[in-house]
Amino acid sequence: MTKNKITPGCYVFPTPVVLVGANVNDKANFNAIGWVCGHEFTPPLISICSNHAHHTNVGIKENQTFSINTPTIEMVEITDYCGIKSGKSVDKSEIFDVFYGELKTAPMIEEAALNLECKLIHTVDTKEISNTKMGHYIFIGEVVQAYAEEKYLSNGAPDVEKIKPLVLSSSNSKVNYYEMGKEIGRAWNIGLNYKKEKK
Amino acid sequence: MTKNKITPGCYVFPTPVVLVGANVNDKANFNAIGWVCGHEFTPPLISICSNHAHHTNVGIKENQTFSINTPTIEMVEITDYCGIKSGKSVDKSEIFDVFYGELKTAPMIEEAALNLECKLIHTVDTKEISNTKMGHYIFIGEVVQAYAEEKYLSNGAPDVEKIKPLVLSSSNSKVNYYEMGKEIGRAWNIGLNYKKEKK
Repeated sequence: MTKNKITPGCYVFPTPVVLVGANVNDKANFNAIGWVCGHEFTPPLISICSNHAHHTNVGIKENQTFSINTPTIEMVEITDYCGIKSGKSVDKSEIFDVFYGELKTAPMIEEAALNLECKLIHTVDTKEISNTKMGHYIFIGEVVQAYAEEKYLSNGAPDVEKIKPLVLSSSNSKVNYYEMGKEIGRAWNIGLNYKKEKK
Repeated sequence: MTKNKITPGCYVFPTPVVLVGANVNDKANFNAIGWVCGHEFTPPLISICSNHAHHTNVGIKENQTFSINTPTIEMVEITDYCGIKSGKSVDKSEIFDVFYGELKTAPMIEEAALNLECKLIHTVDTKEISNTKMGHYIFIGEVVQAYAEEKYLSNGAPDVEKIKPLVLSSSNSKVNYYEMGKEIGRAWNIGLNYKKEKK
């Protein structure tokens, strides 16, 4: 084998990037999160994984609600700002036009292409399942309502090619934002071309 | 507000794509999974979220191990094939050159750019936390060893620009594979340019 053993790491290439919103002490706060993942279709379940240190966690636990907002590539600076600056030290409640929906306590970003209003249904604390010193909460939410402008939809559903989301990836010591690239095939379809070859 | 309420959905744009490997009845099986997510750095924890119907689950539960293999864009057809064809009906043990590592029971793909050997440490069943009829397992694994060829590394760590991973995204009713696009900024850095404007 020509492979090297390399230091085990949390290597997931690439990830999406979202702005997670929560009300902390009745004030909207937003954090940039790359560890976000789908889990179920009906009801729709999505998790975000948040470092114990994040200010947003306080609001998620208190209200049992949060929002997931999808920034477009034009929002790269403000998205990154939300990841750099903690709500403990700066007030992020006025950097976006904020609106609320059915759950009343999950602040959403008007400027974002897509807003998912989530009710917290389950939490996993990595400190309880591993011997980590850092600690992350995996907050699993049920999407109770979703919002998007017409220009980001096709046949009433979000169209990723219209949204043009950010893509995040750790490349060695650098962590970069990327655009999505060109389409290279239809999923659950292009594999039909595969011809099994006996090794 | 100019936003439409749209049908709540599991909208995560975009996602990575990995080939998850497990030994089922002592035979290597692989499935394509887009719901994969990082959770912790030390020890490195990553989850994959797998529909209850998947054959791979049997092996993950039996051996308490699995692998996460990162396909390159050249592997798009065979990756999709693994997502279309279930191990219940086709034998996928010979479509790749397979190797095993420290855990002995987590089959890994020689052709993949990156291989993560994982020990199962925690499972969440979406049927136990929601009223879904479908059901997915969130298998959280600790990465105990990682493997990659020199050509995919920079300073000993995986380099996403050398790996050229697949990107998956649901666009309305279509689900497509994409390439990664161009870099648009350094994360935890470009946000320093953001100038707060009073709304």
